[in-house]
Amino acid sequence: MKVGVFGSGTVGQTIAAKVAELGHEVMVGTRDTGKLADWLGATRGKVQAGSPAATAAHGEILFNATNGGGSLEALALAGEANLNGKILIDISNPLDFSRGMPPTLSVSNTDSLGEQIQRAYPRVRVVKTLNTITASLMVNPRQLADGDHHVFISGNDADAKAKVVDVLTNWFGWRHVLDLGDIATARGTEMYLPIWLRMWGALGTGIFNVKIVK
Amino acid sequence: MKVGVFGSGTVGQTIAAKVAELGHEVMVGTRDTGKLADWLGATRGKVQAGSPAATAAHGEILFNATNGGGSLEALALAGEANLNGKILIDISNPLDFSRGMPPTLSVSNTDSLGEQIQRAYPRVRVVKTLNTITASLMVNPRQLADGDHHVFISGNDADAKAKVVDVLTNWFGWRHVLDLGDIATARGTEMYLPIWLRMWGALGTGIFNVKIVK
Repeated sequence: MKVGVFGSGTVGQTIAAKVAELGHEVMVGTRDTGKLADWLGATRGKVQAGSPAATAAHGEILFNATNGGGSLEALALAGEANLNGKILIDISNPLDFSRGMPPTLSVSNTDSLGEQIQRAYPRVRVVKTLNTITASLMVNPRQLADGDHHVFISGNDADAKAKVVDVLTNWFGWRHVLDLGDIATARGTEMYLPIWLRMWGALGTGIFNVKIVK
Repeated sequence: MKVGVFGSGTVGQTIAAKVAELGHEVMVGTRDTGKLADWLGATRGKVQAGSPAATAAHGEILFNATNGGGSLEALALAGEANLNGKILIDISNPLDFSRGMPPTLSVSNTDSLGEQIQRAYPRVRVVKTLNTITASLMVNPRQLADGDHHVFISGNDADAKAKVVDVLTNWFGWRHVLDLGDIATARGTEMYLPIWLRMWGALGTGIFNVKIVK
């Protein structure tokens, strides 16, 4: 499958490398492809880089792995016509580092970045997920307790969510995916970041997650 | 020990009944003690009711189990002189139901109700905890997976937190208490409510919690 990944930071590189390893044709979208030369070389040509627009046109499934503060701008560069009709797996969090550490959220409580993206691109099938764990766990949940912990999904399109559950389980190895409901439930997973950041501090590692016990 | 519980709703009644069952002298603080007559009778006299001020004066340890929207008003009625120097176990959440369901938060992101209470009463030893689970689990965590799940604490006073960990473990049976840090980390646990509310909807029960897997 052709997959596009917006964002070339740790999350974007981790997702792209894993998806390429599975044999898919991956393009990473960034405004400065030159800075990725070393990393692209290390992938032995399995991943290519392109502009946001080229990446959106390339991908049958798209990942938004940009920093939350730059997500809407990156998607604008990708172009609505290139995005329409596609599944956009939104991993971004609206972290605001301008007040120091730990970051606050630039949108929360009565709205979310997931909803902002869905409103800006009503014909894109936005599914929020993977934003509650650190990058290496996203694509390798079995490294922790043999995968006995949870990831959440939020989105308005049931068919898109079913396809994303397939990606999570069959590509990445997730065992437990909890569907929280429509894209407005992204408020829940984005507002989880403040406790995630404090757990990270208290635990001394980002390699952790929560298991729902009921 | 003499224990004061502010708030006579489900959380306040649940805490008060459990603490009384353990043999402590419990007073529930409310502005309308008459409405509690039936419930107080059912406790067979083990729990008494009083004004917020009488409850604050009575308790060596205090629980804030009021609705978040009324917490600061209830504490004002309790009176600073009656509160000073005491441990206040703050269970409240700043839920705002004025926009419909699910509720939003009346304070979040750059502040929290726990911090507001600590700022208003600098000589009170505020410890935020138990606000991330439903009432019956607060005092009986072993009903679920034999207690193999987590509760969080936040507070500025290390000695007060140690005493609250003792209450959580020895009074209520908690096995896993994670200290997130100072009272500002209450932003984390209060902002967890939006995802808790969506999990409640998705799971169809409030009898659940999260276990940290690392």
